Amino acid sequence: MKVAKFGEFGLIERIRGAVSAEPALRLGIGDDCAAVEIPPGELLLTTTDLLIEDVHFRRQWTDWRRLGRKSASVNISDIAAMGGIPRFLYLGLALPAESELADFDAFIAGFLQAAGEYGAVLAGGDTCRSPGPLLISVTAQGSVPADEVVTRGGARPGDLIFVSGTLGDSALALRRLQAGETPHPYLAGRHHDPTARVGLGRALAAACLPSAMIDLSDGLLADLGHLLTASGFGAEVWERALPLSAPFQAIMQNEPDVATLALGGGEDYELLFTAPASKAAEVARVAEGAGVAVTGVGRIGTEPGLIVIDRHGRVQRPQRAGFDHFAD
Amino acid sequence: MKVAKFGEFGLIERIRGAVSAEPALRLGIGDDCAAVEIPPGELLLTTTDLLIEDVHFRRQWTDWRRLGRKSASVNISDIAAMGGIPRFLYLGLALPAESELADFDAFIAGFLQAAGEYGAVLAGGDTCRSPGPLLISVTAQGSVPADEVVTRGGARPGDLIFVSGTLGDSALALRRLQAGETPHPYLAGRHHDPTARVGLGRALAAACLPSAMIDLSDGLLADLGHLLTASGFGAEVWERALPLSAPFQAIMQNEPDVATLALGGGEDYELLFTAPASKAAEVARVAEGAGVAVTGVGRIGTEPGLIVIDRHGRVQRPQRAGFDHFAD
Repeated sequence: MKVAKFGEFGLIERIRGAVSAEPALRLGIGDDCAAVEIPPGELLLTTTDLLIEDVHFRRQWTDWRRLGRKSASVNISDIAAMGGIPRFLYLGLALPAESELADFDAFIAGFLQAAGEYGAVLAGGDTCRSPGPLLISVTAQGSVPADEVVTRGGARPGDLIFVSGTLGDSALALRRLQAGETPHPYLAGRHHDPTARVGLGRALAAACLPSAMIDLSDGLLADLGHLLTASGFGAEVWERALPLSAPFQAIMQNEPDVATLALGGGEDYELLFTAPASKAAEVARVAEGAGVAVTGVGRIGTEPGLIVIDRHGRVQRPQRAGFDHFAD
Repeated sequence: MKVAKFGEFGLIERIRGAVSAEPALRLGIGDDCAAVEIPPGELLLTTTDLLIEDVHFRRQWTDWRRLGRKSASVNISDIAAMGGIPRFLYLGLALPAESELADFDAFIAGFLQAAGEYGAVLAGGDTCRSPGPLLISVTAQGSVPADEVVTRGGARPGDLIFVSGTLGDSALALRRLQAGETPHPYLAGRHHDPTARVGLGRALAAACLPSAMIDLSDGLLADLGHLLTASGFGAEVWERALPLSAPFQAIMQNEPDVATLALGGGEDYELLFTAPASKAAEVARVAEGAGVAVTGVGRIGTEPGLIVIDRHGRVQRPQRAGFDHFAD
């Protein structure tokens, strides 16, 4: 059955029936607005992302359930990067009229499953027909105690630069897909179904450890560049220190050029944060408590700009440090 | 100059430079999330809309500035329908790469101008390239005292049904555009640059007058249908009582069939609300204070379903009462 046969209001009812209750959600799907409570003393965090077919994803490379999961996770990752707790999601979905109802159901199931894993509920949205590509718009709301919010702008000279997890896995999977090949399953999972580091972000913020934080969506150099611009300082990155997964390392043995993906590849959705060097042990302790590996990969300096100490100890000045949606 | 030459981050900086400061906005454009304060004792209201080229609008029928204004206003209209105060907007914009920078600027100027008229500020968003149509995703946040939120679900038998402003103007303009004609300027303005009834919605809610409220986006019968479904009762609508603008009435003299647009035409963005008949005088007084005409157009009844008493006093049972994005 096609979604067009089911109709806009049929689809909305279908979503509403799949959403679980949440006390802070006073009014969810089915009115002009959702109405929710934000805990006293907490700031409301909000982030919004567009995911557009053939710009952000290709339907033939993934499946609808994982696309639903990723749509929730990448948005929630922005809440994690502020030290927040994800709470409410809003989903805008423009579907080609020939979409199958089973695919719609799989997307919603994946979206709600991932949201639930992070403690967030779907509170509202908009569903309509698309004249062409599948379009997904997600807005996530979270909250954070007002004195614990972590911005991009607080890094100070001498701070160490940390990343969670491993780098480049998602970009390596994407490179394989673009070449018409099948990526290693682990790498494919990192690309199609990334994990937002909500527990780690919250634990670090609650311990007042990060001086600045951002999530890695555009790539290490690009996102570190954003953090440096906001903080007003420069940094050095130690390429030898970058954490790499075992599948990534195995491929790098035969294809050394994939190493650049750890520096420049996007969509890892790991956390990048800075903290005073004196707090490195506490960072390690909190990360262990959150069950996520954290690695020091560089240091903030007073010198403007971003340099990389490469695997051979040479100083490199990366030319382009930013994924830009309008660039080629 | 094309937007593609300016780049994603250039565009974001351009928007950021045009946004005015607002004390409750702790952190606006330029971090992973916006961080804002919601007043203690108030509920957070959130609504999200997709506006897609050739589904919701045609570029050749409007201009970028009015498209920007409308993108803000139609979203804010949902906040008005809950009795809320609009506060923060989030704008997702996917632009065809060949878009002109001047058009982008006009869109943003219109969006920010309309937002400012309603007291809302742009707090965040997402900008990227579209492979095809121009895509606009808007999320609006407002707040409302927790005991003043107005839902769709509170209408009771005997309540009168009121609408603000006039009906059918926008749909009549659209009909002209679809026929390749130029609509009357007043009607065109109502279609391309509608007004969200924020002041009226807030004043009614503060006076605890509406038992239920919704904004008119899908058409009177369709939106009243949503309100009746939520409230669990039926209603009668008096066609002779429908408020019509002077240009609409003038056209109706020669083309009597346009009358159906007042019942079924969408996108008026007026408020539809119910209130006990005993409060009709107070409704009129509050509406006068808000500077918006309000007209009684029907009554809630115990009988399920929706009937229309037409201009000749005959009882009509409308077959289809709902704009559906997947229907023809």
